[in-house]
Amino acid sequence: MHHNTMEVAHQAFGHFTHGLATGEWELFLDMLTDDFTFWFPLKPYLGLNVGKQKAREFFQYVSETFSEGIIVTSLERVTSNETTVVFEFRDEGLLRGEPYKNRLAVSFDVREGKICSYREYFGSDGKSN
Amino acid sequence: MHHNTMEVAHQAFGHFTHGLATGEWELFLDMLTDDFTFWFPLKPYLGLNVGKQKAREFFQYVSETFSEGIIVTSLERVTSNETTVVFEFRDEGLLRGEPYKNRLAVSFDVREGKICSYREYFGSDGKSN
Repeated sequence: MHHNTMEVAHQAFGHFTHGLATGEWELFLDMLTDDFTFWFPLKPYLGLNVGKQKAREFFQYVSETFSEGIIVTSLERVTSNETTVVFEFRDEGLLRGEPYKNRLAVSFDVREGKICSYREYFGSDGKSN
Repeated sequence: MHHNTMEVAHQAFGHFTHGLATGEWELFLDMLTDDFTFWFPLKPYLGLNVGKQKAREFFQYVSETFSEGIIVTSLERVTSNETTVVFEFRDEGLLRGEPYKNRLAVSFDVREGKICSYREYFGSDGKSN
């Protein structure tokens, strides 16, 4: 069970980083449950967001905001328990043309081979540092 | 080893929440290595901070900012690997008299029974939501 949680989360994280880099989110979206929920630190998605359709809109919004893609520059820590995997990483990109860097933690909850919930946390407040 | 990592991190997290609530940080500070480093999302401690003395100043600053204390209202997830434990939690308090709520992830690195590094991430951007 724990092993499978890690495997599913790593696969999802791979599709997630692919989405960030390319704007292609289908592989990641395919891994979400229909009742998927996510928490995000900033408006207009601040707080709890419910449903896979909301997720689709959100990731499209991310890729429009970072139209040249976001690159995960290092995966720093991965921690887990039976149902949850947390990835600590850094990323870089251009936010509406301006250099952007962040340090993040994302936490995926796994249920029956899919991701049912996702929480995003910012280490550098979303600004370049 | 893994078991011990969890035990040390839980003990440190207990002292950490005690510090947030009361402003008494000595038990937590006692658990930090001399070369302790921490990352924080906001100025004036944005980014990497080095040394136990810096940590002492930082936690004093936190307790001055939240002079009536910060309460951890729920511990939502705990994940780990051999050396790192991540706590996802919510807290509430008064930030210079104004109601404050946050959703956070803190990641502790454990070395030989102490905490050698700490990374803090904000889920709600430090503002009330």
